[in-house]
Amino acid sequence: MQPKDLAKDTAKILQNYLTYQAVMLVIEQLVETNPGEAIWLRQYSSGGKLRNGEAYIEEIMSEPKGKELALRIMTVRDSIAEKTLEFLPEMVSTGIKQANLSHRCHLLERLTQSQTETSSSSIDSSVSELDTEESSD
Amino acid sequence: MQPKDLAKDTAKILQNYLTYQAVMLVIEQLVETNPGEAIWLRQYSSGGKLRNGEAYIEEIMSEPKGKELALRIMTVRDSIAEKTLEFLPEMVSTGIKQANLSHRCHLLERLTQSQTETSSSSIDSSVSELDTEESSD
Repeated sequence: MQPKDLAKDTAKILQNYLTYQAVMLVIEQLVETNPGEAIWLRQYSSGGKLRNGEAYIEEIMSEPKGKELALRIMTVRDSIAEKTLEFLPEMVSTGIKQANLSHRCHLLERLTQSQTETSSSSIDSSVSELDTEESSD
Repeated sequence: MQPKDLAKDTAKILQNYLTYQAVMLVIEQLVETNPGEAIWLRQYSSGGKLRNGEAYIEEIMSEPKGKELALRIMTVRDSIAEKTLEFLPEMVSTGIKQANLSHRCHLLERLTQSQTETSSSSIDSSVSELDTEESSD
């Protein structure tokens, strides 16, 4: 896959995730102001509907009480995007570099341990060989 | 949820997705160079293991043939991150704004249509009322 296609796919995943976050935030706000609508929206948004954010918004707009909710979700998602997107490249890049470093350290520790174990077990066997030789003398 | 927590959660989702992309890319490369290993890695990576990228890497490193694959996956993911991350904020922000505009247009179309239908049906009923009045004259 080309870097351009990778970026497109990643952007789509991100857009879907921000839509999911917006819906969760609207539900959270509704719990305070309109509990009945919060329950309705939570039930409506279950069952994997939010995997495709745009189809979800298109669908909820056709519900009698969905128009205002859809407009609100879109506004909230735009606002979340503005507040978070600019920090993501740095955060993810640092996250990946740190995680890679930590995994490499674990791998090195494991390899060193197994080498130490191998060499100590070969020392043990040499010692026991020596013992056998000495006792047979 | 605070914007900082939202950004953290989103960064985690993104890091997992880039790990998934890296694994898919390594499988794609292995199909050409080492089909047996490609099949092994595809089978190993199934069943939702890739939902948590860091746990996946930690786990595959403990497999006999997993060490080199883990190192390769980490290198590929770092490279994908470098190539795509900087473009994401602009892509996602534009994507969301365009999608919001398109949804709002659809909603407006729908509202205008239903208003037109209402007014045309009221004209129809007025006409039929007139007809009735005329015929009763």
